[in-house]
Amino acid sequence: MSARLDAQMAFLMEADKLKAVTRATRNHDQRFENSAEHSWHLALFALVLAEHADETVDVARVIKMLLIHDIVEIDAGDAPIFGNVDETATKAAEAAAAERLFGLLPAEQADALLTLWNEFEANQTADAKFAKSLDRFQPPNLNLASGGGSWTDYNVDYATFETRLSPKISRGAPKLWTWLQPKVLAFFATR
Amino acid sequence: MSARLDAQMAFLMEADKLKAVTRATRNHDQRFENSAEHSWHLALFALVLAEHADETVDVARVIKMLLIHDIVEIDAGDAPIFGNVDETATKAAEAAAAERLFGLLPAEQADALLTLWNEFEANQTADAKFAKSLDRFQPPNLNLASGGGSWTDYNVDYATFETRLSPKISRGAPKLWTWLQPKVLAFFATR
Ligand SMILES: [Ca+2]
Repeated sequence: MSARLDAQMAFLMEADKLKAVTRATRNHDQRFENSAEHSWHLALFALVLAEHADETVDVARVIKMLLIHDIVEIDAGDAPIFGNVDETATKAAEAAAAERLFGLLPAEQADALLTLWNEFEANQTADAKFAKSLDRFQPPNLNLASGGGSWTDYNVDYATFETRLSPKISRGAPKLWTWLQPKVLAFFATR
Repeated sequence: MSARLDAQMAFLMEADKLKAVTRATRNHDQRFENSAEHSWHLALFALVLAEHADETVDVARVIKMLLIHDIVEIDAGDAPIFGNVDETATKAAEAAAAERLFGLLPAEQADALLTLWNEFEANQTADAKFAKSLDRFQPPNLNLASGGGSWTDYNVDYATFETRLSPKISRGAPKLWTWLQPKVLAFFATR
């Protein structure tokens, strides 16, 4: 049992490094959000907002997905929504990171978390679609709360925002997009 | 429905402030951990280590408890394990904070999360005991990884560590205490 617990702890202490991965979004206090606190925030979004999912979801599975969805960034870094990233290279780096990081765990736990992470990435099941939508819904809310955040830093206009975010948020949570859109429009109208 | 979602979002955006509550523990990179990323880390501990709970637990409930367990610190601040805190005053401040913060939510969600937080605080059910044990098990592991952390900052010796932490970790997860103890002993032996 000790070797098993050693492996589990190796994974959990490696995961600590996600606290040092910086995102493009800013918190209320203007500090750039890190991917660990972002994952916590999203899990809380899932806990509170599950009723607004487009299809019925298993909240506990959505939360587990969100807790692990960004762990690959320990090796692959964060790819900002409004940045210009090579999507093929990012996907390959993230897949390798998932193998290495989840692979620190005992085999059956590694398989379970890798499968859950792949389900999130594939964005096809009700749980994954809702989790992905929350991952896209939270940053604009932080931008509104921090007076612009990544919209200002990346010089984003409303049309770019809508083109990039509307399909992604609407896919799993159209009601959240409907709630958000007028708030973002009002923000851009004042600039 | 919009008023309901307004209330849910008011809570979720207020919760963002937990990212600015600093703890006494340091991450790998020596930065003081904040309570939001701490909550994420603990939820991940629960996901991976549930099999080591003393009694059978409902992992999903333990995770939900850990996601919300520190939200009261937005109003009440963090009470360091090795600090000298007035426990009665802290408990009162945290209870008031729980009323205010969970009270931002629609009534039945406020009740559900307040009930879950009270269960965690009461530390009597299998789920709460395991959650509390993880909350005490993670910081010494960070201290080991950061070369001393809060033990160094608060000038803690091994006897003080064992007196304060052993009963708390052992209550819900004696196997985790058994695993940890020799590692901490070895660390203090080198000082
Ligand atoms: Ca605490």
